[in-house]
Amino acid sequence: MADSNGKRNLLIIGAGGVAQVTAHKAAQWKGEFGSIHIANRTLSKADAIVASMKDKGHDIEVGTHALDAMDAQAVADLIRKLEAGIVINVGSAFINMTVLQGCIDAGAAYIDTAIHEEPDKICETPPWYANYEWKRREAVEKAGITAILGAGFDPGVVNAYARLAEDEYFDRIDSIDIVDINAGSHGRYFATNFDPEINFREFTGTVYSWQDGAWQSNKMFEVGREWDLPVVGKRTAYMSGHDEVHSLSARYPQADVRFWMGFGDHYINVFTVLQSLGLLSEQPVTTAEGQDVVPLKVVKAVLPDPASLAPDYEGNTCIGDLVKGETDGQAGEVFIYNVADHKAAYDEVGSQGISYTAGVPPLAAAVLIARGIWDVKRMANVEDLPARPFLDLLGEMGLPTRVIDAEGDHPI
Amino acid sequence: MADSNGKRNLLIIGAGGVAQVTAHKAAQWKGEFGSIHIANRTLSKADAIVASMKDKGHDIEVGTHALDAMDAQAVADLIRKLEAGIVINVGSAFINMTVLQGCIDAGAAYIDTAIHEEPDKICETPPWYANYEWKRREAVEKAGITAILGAGFDPGVVNAYARLAEDEYFDRIDSIDIVDINAGSHGRYFATNFDPEINFREFTGTVYSWQDGAWQSNKMFEVGREWDLPVVGKRTAYMSGHDEVHSLSARYPQADVRFWMGFGDHYINVFTVLQSLGLLSEQPVTTAEGQDVVPLKVVKAVLPDPASLAPDYEGNTCIGDLVKGETDGQAGEVFIYNVADHKAAYDEVGSQGISYTAGVPPLAAAVLIARGIWDVKRMANVEDLPARPFLDLLGEMGLPTRVIDAEGDHPI
Repeated sequence: MADSNGKRNLLIIGAGGVAQVTAHKAAQWKGEFGSIHIANRTLSKADAIVASMKDKGHDIEVGTHALDAMDAQAVADLIRKLEAGIVINVGSAFINMTVLQGCIDAGAAYIDTAIHEEPDKICETPPWYANYEWKRREAVEKAGITAILGAGFDPGVVNAYARLAEDEYFDRIDSIDIVDINAGSHGRYFATNFDPEINFREFTGTVYSWQDGAWQSNKMFEVGREWDLPVVGKRTAYMSGHDEVHSLSARYPQADVRFWMGFGDHYINVFTVLQSLGLLSEQPVTTAEGQDVVPLKVVKAVLPDPASLAPDYEGNTCIGDLVKGETDGQAGEVFIYNVADHKAAYDEVGSQGISYTAGVPPLAAAVLIARGIWDVKRMANVEDLPARPFLDLLGEMGLPTRVIDAEGDHPI
Repeated sequence: MADSNGKRNLLIIGAGGVAQVTAHKAAQWKGEFGSIHIANRTLSKADAIVASMKDKGHDIEVGTHALDAMDAQAVADLIRKLEAGIVINVGSAFINMTVLQGCIDAGAAYIDTAIHEEPDKICETPPWYANYEWKRREAVEKAGITAILGAGFDPGVVNAYARLAEDEYFDRIDSIDIVDINAGSHGRYFATNFDPEINFREFTGTVYSWQDGAWQSNKMFEVGREWDLPVVGKRTAYMSGHDEVHSLSARYPQADVRFWMGFGDHYINVFTVLQSLGLLSEQPVTTAEGQDVVPLKVVKAVLPDPASLAPDYEGNTCIGDLVKGETDGQAGEVFIYNVADHKAAYDEVGSQGISYTAGVPPLAAAVLIARGIWDVKRMANVEDLPARPFLDLLGEMGLPTRVIDAEGDHPI
């Protein structure tokens, strides 16, 4: 599980836009690891990432491997063959449970960035983590491995922001509002920043929030609020269903936990038309010619490949936590946030800003495991782990954290 | 070709919403014909129409026949077998040329309601009739049959309105503006009134109009104008590509000929989203799973079946011609029009008003052929035939014509 210098071999599973960022960052931080590998269903996509790394001047050997990550045995076999000590799962959300099982069986640390989903259903019962990942807590502990869930930006970094507020600002947290604004422009009529299949599924189900100590249900775009945020200015964001609400509510049951996603009127219009017509359905329809087709997969096929947006993407994202709480009987609030630049991300790693913010944090988590700081030998969501080392390392990696508190707007 | 009373047998090809109207009307006017038959690719749909006729109390024998109307030989064989003297083609727009050929070969009169289309292309070169139908003029004349093209409402009745203006109002016609407003409401989020595949194809190509003695090109929704019409009131209609422009411009080359279709903002928004995303394309796309799918066929599959709208459809259509011209050196204008009621249509024949206005006129044309009035033994568009007998008969059949002229708003 380690090379001759005692460093752990790293296996990245997946070869999409996020995986590309993670791989580039791994190359930048190669001194933390032994050998570095990328495994993907389609080998050529893994090879393309390695080629893009060479384009950016990274002189490093990276192994590429074809892998059916829905097959836990195949995952375990590959981990053993590569003697991988840390696995970063940045593939589709459908492979979490098989990759996790492979890590349990083969004894490697596991990191992912999004909650597990089953291809044919939208699992609705909150908290979502309890439907899949958290059921494996005991198995993870028994195997003595570290498994860090949801270590992207949101979920992930925003969970650490909440933990930072707990550690450094408040005795009691009363509310956590996570706000995700993408003020970038890709110049296309319409596109999603992630795989459209996953992207739309986030918005077609019930919007769960944790308020007044209980799960509350709303519909997408039912609750909107205008925010005025650093760099991106005034933007409307809508209460949305999102992974981190389902773990933060467990650590902070006394607090209201809400997630707000920014959408322009044009996005909402296109989404509303597609959803109202039934074109976002994952249930097959039959054409007049008798062909069975899943409408959502056709929508995905006509939309731009999210990775193709990167060269033209301009502008910034602002993602942060507005945390309200009390310390020494005094009510207060802080806004902890990051601003990322699409063009800077493309220049550095050949990906757009959304992929950048999602792909860097799991590599930071891997470094913290490699260094022993986060190698907790159990299953943990990000807010269960010390936030400072993670956020400080992310600052070094290109995702600096700032805070607006009583003293103004400053770096943490 | 005739029964023992010398009456011609009638064959209706097609079994959609329009065919249902034509069949019901044929039953009402059965005295004009010998035997009555319906042929369709799917036999059960023809049988369903016969059942709906029985429901409405029509005590009449109607033969039903399975027919692949894309096979001209099969069409001719069926015509001969049934000794059909008149064929009404109210099937898909893809079958015109094979049904016409069958009629030429077997010696039956031919009537259709829309221009021929090939499934895999949108034929753009104006005048559209010259691409297919008009090429068979000589063959029709040689066979000694009558072939009446475009004898629905629009094209069809609106062509007769232009001819009426020529016959009864003007020495010289200067402009013909055909306006089609459907002010009905079906209560669904979105639906098309015809087969979505045909309906959308009308709007995805170039909008041709005949102005200043030449073909002019515009894009759909590029040119809009507010109209104030009887019953339906103020409505915005957009210059659209439509069959009748391509025949009226041949008879009235000195006149401007334009077609205007009414659309609400909601319809335009949905259409624009679908078209901008590429979901109205008839060219296949490949999904991530490798399935080849024609997006337009999936959109059709998720939209309501146009026939299913009928029971809830309320409100009126207003379709007419604003004709400007000169007589005795005096400039003038008339608006010749019909108002139809969706609910009345459903109560009478079980179809919505759009199908009603399209399905009644070809039966009127068949009656005029049966009576010898329109049995001209050549190929003709409706404006090439005397308008009065047609419009008077349509008045008896439930589609009365009114006119707004110097004397006010009155029946013709």
